[in-house]
Amino acid sequence: MAETGDGRRRVVLEGIAPVVDGGRFPIKRTVGERVVVEVDAFADGHDALAVRLLWREEGDPEWDEVAMEPLGNDRWRGELVPTRIGRLAYTVEGWIDHFQSWRRDLGKRVEAGQEVSVELQIGAGLVRQAAQRAAAAGARSDARVLAGLADDLAGIGAGEKVADRVRLGLDDELAALVERHPDRRFASRWPRELEAWVDRDLARFSAWYELFPRSTSPEPGRHGTFADLEARLPYVAAMGFDVLYLPPIHPIGATHRKGKNNAVAAEPDDVGSPWAIGGEAGGHKAVHPDLGDLDGFRRLVRRARDEHGIEVALDVAFQVSPDHPLVREHPEWFRKRPDGTIQYAENPPKKYQDIYPFDFECEDWRGLWRELLSVFEFWIEQGVTVFRVDNPHTKPFAFWEWAIGEIRARHPETIFLSEAFTRPKVMQRLAKLGFTQSYTYFAWRTSKRELVEYFTELGRPPLADYFRPNLWPNTPDILTEQLQIGGRATFAQRLVLAATLGASYGIYGPAFELGVSQAKEPGSEEYLDSEKYQLRHWETDDPASLAELIARLNRARRENPALHGDRGLELLPIDNEALIAYVKGTSDGANAVLAVVNLDPHHVQSGWLDLPLDRLGLPADRPFQVHDLLTDARYLWNGPRNFVELDPRSLPAHLFRLRRRVRSERDFDYFM
Amino acid sequence: MAETGDGRRRVVLEGIAPVVDGGRFPIKRTVGERVVVEVDAFADGHDALAVRLLWREEGDPEWDEVAMEPLGNDRWRGELVPTRIGRLAYTVEGWIDHFQSWRRDLGKRVEAGQEVSVELQIGAGLVRQAAQRAAAAGARSDARVLAGLADDLAGIGAGEKVADRVRLGLDDELAALVERHPDRRFASRWPRELEAWVDRDLARFSAWYELFPRSTSPEPGRHGTFADLEARLPYVAAMGFDVLYLPPIHPIGATHRKGKNNAVAAEPDDVGSPWAIGGEAGGHKAVHPDLGDLDGFRRLVRRARDEHGIEVALDVAFQVSPDHPLVREHPEWFRKRPDGTIQYAENPPKKYQDIYPFDFECEDWRGLWRELLSVFEFWIEQGVTVFRVDNPHTKPFAFWEWAIGEIRARHPETIFLSEAFTRPKVMQRLAKLGFTQSYTYFAWRTSKRELVEYFTELGRPPLADYFRPNLWPNTPDILTEQLQIGGRATFAQRLVLAATLGASYGIYGPAFELGVSQAKEPGSEEYLDSEKYQLRHWETDDPASLAELIARLNRARRENPALHGDRGLELLPIDNEALIAYVKGTSDGANAVLAVVNLDPHHVQSGWLDLPLDRLGLPADRPFQVHDLLTDARYLWNGPRNFVELDPRSLPAHLFRLRRRVRSERDFDYFM
Repeated sequence: MAETGDGRRRVVLEGIAPVVDGGRFPIKRTVGERVVVEVDAFADGHDALAVRLLWREEGDPEWDEVAMEPLGNDRWRGELVPTRIGRLAYTVEGWIDHFQSWRRDLGKRVEAGQEVSVELQIGAGLVRQAAQRAAAAGARSDARVLAGLADDLAGIGAGEKVADRVRLGLDDELAALVERHPDRRFASRWPRELEAWVDRDLARFSAWYELFPRSTSPEPGRHGTFADLEARLPYVAAMGFDVLYLPPIHPIGATHRKGKNNAVAAEPDDVGSPWAIGGEAGGHKAVHPDLGDLDGFRRLVRRARDEHGIEVALDVAFQVSPDHPLVREHPEWFRKRPDGTIQYAENPPKKYQDIYPFDFECEDWRGLWRELLSVFEFWIEQGVTVFRVDNPHTKPFAFWEWAIGEIRARHPETIFLSEAFTRPKVMQRLAKLGFTQSYTYFAWRTSKRELVEYFTELGRPPLADYFRPNLWPNTPDILTEQLQIGGRATFAQRLVLAATLGASYGIYGPAFELGVSQAKEPGSEEYLDSEKYQLRHWETDDPASLAELIARLNRARRENPALHGDRGLELLPIDNEALIAYVKGTSDGANAVLAVVNLDPHHVQSGWLDLPLDRLGLPADRPFQVHDLLTDARYLWNGPRNFVELDPRSLPAHLFRLRRRVRSERDFDYFM
Repeated sequence: MAETGDGRRRVVLEGIAPVVDGGRFPIKRTVGERVVVEVDAFADGHDALAVRLLWREEGDPEWDEVAMEPLGNDRWRGELVPTRIGRLAYTVEGWIDHFQSWRRDLGKRVEAGQEVSVELQIGAGLVRQAAQRAAAAGARSDARVLAGLADDLAGIGAGEKVADRVRLGLDDELAALVERHPDRRFASRWPRELEAWVDRDLARFSAWYELFPRSTSPEPGRHGTFADLEARLPYVAAMGFDVLYLPPIHPIGATHRKGKNNAVAAEPDDVGSPWAIGGEAGGHKAVHPDLGDLDGFRRLVRRARDEHGIEVALDVAFQVSPDHPLVREHPEWFRKRPDGTIQYAENPPKKYQDIYPFDFECEDWRGLWRELLSVFEFWIEQGVTVFRVDNPHTKPFAFWEWAIGEIRARHPETIFLSEAFTRPKVMQRLAKLGFTQSYTYFAWRTSKRELVEYFTELGRPPLADYFRPNLWPNTPDILTEQLQIGGRATFAQRLVLAATLGASYGIYGPAFELGVSQAKEPGSEEYLDSEKYQLRHWETDDPASLAELIARLNRARRENPALHGDRGLELLPIDNEALIAYVKGTSDGANAVLAVVNLDPHHVQSGWLDLPLDRLGLPADRPFQVHDLLTDARYLWNGPRNFVELDPRSLPAHLFRLRRRVRSERDFDYFM
């Protein structure tokens, strides 16, 4: 009868949440972002239970404990709030609470007018046991008090009246005292310690701006430098971005270099693709000589952070040009073809002869993996804490799990954005393995229905617990058909959607704010004269630029906590299919924002919107104010149904802050 | 770098189904009932994968393997069919298939007109490796053939033309041969072997009839006997039941015996409740002397099975009357109160002084548990294989898991019905622990909406994988308010719902078929003059009896495989809220049944029903026949919308067999 244990009844624990793949992977949270834990807890019979949430942050010697509350249907809930970056462990424990059962039943018996003297003896025995546990735990004062109360309950000594003994049995203070010394010998604990990885705020809430440093020279035709980029920092900061992401800044190979517009043969003065990494001047740990030197880079990183509150993010692309020093130094890290040549990158029938992939499965994989890890370490030493990782899905999952784990152990503040545009489950796996944020399909989700379906999926568990979307309306690789044909209204529409549907979003500029929309050729998502293959010169001082709208949006994002997370998104009914409307609110109800976007770039669209006043805490019996954070206009609305009209020629979106009635004496608070 | 393994890329396996609580509990199936297994399988990069379902039944020395097929979105599916009762293990394995990847890419390259001589060398290498694996596995003939083909592919020897070598590389037979010797060194396997518990058919599909043996005497006022019950077998068999379930047949205690209508004091001639088990004549292994003896019981069981195809099910209620022999023999198995008395059963403030519960947590719990196990063993020796377990939720979960496991190890054909009417998660846990079937909330799910919600939940995973509902419109404890007031139409309605919504159902008769509807008092679900406390005499030869309808229903159930399982239930739209309509179909589409039930016992109700012709395989371009299995009426229907009308005064339900067009030359097949 080994498998039956000790014959003691135990609490059953089932269906814990949140959990990713049964606990194989941590959930993701940020400092201060609460973790609401739920579990089914029950036992045979009708006994009362005690259920506790246990948690500890890295380095804590002991568990913290939180009493969980019953929600009904045997579901229990408790919550914790992480206080620092790093690993956090949590689990739940439950036990049958004999004293609580006894106390509850005593109440019922007394109410039914039953004789309870034997019951009081039973209760006295339970209190006596609690006294013994208190004594054993060294709580001598509690032990003494409990022992005395046990005697009182039993009617020992002064011959207490039964009514007094009953009162004592039902007394809240007695219950609290017994509760401090529970009998946990037969407690059940969730069989696995679950983990949360706790990041800093930027992991959850971030606005990214991508820009090619070599295109920042004020002088057309000249190769931009880190110094030129420094001069652009105020421009980026004025728009309100948190992260400035740079495509690879390393030396670029000459062999098989691609020409302008991805021409197979480069002209002598062509600058090549920054992703063809490695040349005479070095590899992944070197800086392209035309951009400047390491000192210049460090200064850029420092000034961006200290003067503008902007983190510089680097692009980590683990591939090399044939001229990369590692090709000579470590030929064993590349795959040979039977004819002796090195296997270049390909996705048959496409061939990329200017790129060699690493052979992650080579004999000396340990050496290769360590070298790649050292690339991250190198740039972290230069002050970089945010990385955008190029095509992680073409490298082994095991490599990422190991590498991110190693880096996090020493630099838990590091943020990794996964640039995987591939099948959903592969993208999700990368997020589970440790990537902080992930690119999404947002660029291609354009209809109302597609947006609703996609963001409903992203906003709820299991995805919401580990996959943090980062929404990009464009990238240097992605000029969507919608942007090519939709004009400025489409750029504005996509911008507002990205910045409000997602807590993290980014744009590739200045192409985005300037509305650059010409593709290389029909049917292509490549930009014409793409910066990937040539220098560009941008005049950002354009009256049609979206920079001002971006600045307003990013300010609205900062000022409204409702936009700081990916949860709490609720689509609202609106009687026009060309309009999409959604609210986002903080879980405490203190802040709520309503976005209405006209998805039609060509026509004025209007409609009646249904607001769930109750859930939003808005008054049903008088007007309330909505404040458009994009135009600063204020409207008085009344009741649940309200009219909106959006003209794409001006601005195709509202972003309303909902002003609720403040509970104060002044009745006009809600106009504030 | 220990945690990175060996640096080799592996297939990721996620989200396997079916699975109960991560594999903690087995899924349930019956012999011949297929198990469709799905899993997400993918790897980094773009390689082709091989994924296999592995399974074996108890005693099989080796795994059987089935190739799984991709469904899209990285989901794979395979299926197996259990062939015998007992445990069945299954898992999945996947690996990167380098030869398939090579072959797929070769096709793309050739199509793009690329030069492929180096590729052919690479392919030859892969085939050579397969030859080596074949040789190592002792498949010498395959090894020889593969080695030769590798040479051909490489162009060694006779100098094959490149076109011929390409043809060979793409050849299906070569692929099949390589596939027979795959490189599984780096295969991934699901980390846990999953289990199915495979029962006999009766576990999935059964019609139960409950009856008090002591009320079977043809002579009013006389205590019925096993011989009387034998005489009733033809009556039960004529209605088409599979299981005849008897309340406890043991001696009944005299101490604190309850009188008629649960009176606290019994009259001298009161027979007592069969659930107050144990008296002078013995306990759980004895037969009530007034019913007969063990020989008589064994004869009843044998005749029921051999002559009528009916299994006799016993009620196992682990509780005792104060007169039970165990109270004297093993006082240590009961809980003492501080005043020295034995703790009787109670659910405060209710007290049941005629019943002592066992103390499953007593010092000698091992001895007690073994004794209780021996009760099952005893009755199995008498020929019983089906047990209805009384109130299992008031005994420890661990006891049931152990006891059912022990019994199954020796008697895998045993069936356990859990009589737990308690909270959903407790009922579900009991099913997970091993109970074959479970009572449900069906009796109290009366509105269309309640029925739809409840049976939608029961019909899909996770519940459908381990919880087999058994639907009872009444029991000796449950005369619902609906039955009390609804009249014969309500009895008929509830009968049809029970027999068609669930693959297993039961009635407590003859009270049910005779429409007994008088409660003990208003607001009570207890029968007036309940058989639980007194003898009753039933005249079953009543023209208003539902026996004939029951017989038709049970025949329809037997003849239509669509009604043999709980899956495949689909609610259909019908434009009258008083009517409920649903189809059940077999997964192969060979059989489908449509039920339409009038939930209003007082008025004729009619409506237009929408049939999904496509999914049901019905023709859209001409009439098809529906055949009412309850009345034998046949109708010609046309198109998806059809009219139904049900009069509660005659029969409040249709049960249509849908006759599809048979794919033959004869155009009128569908009239058959």
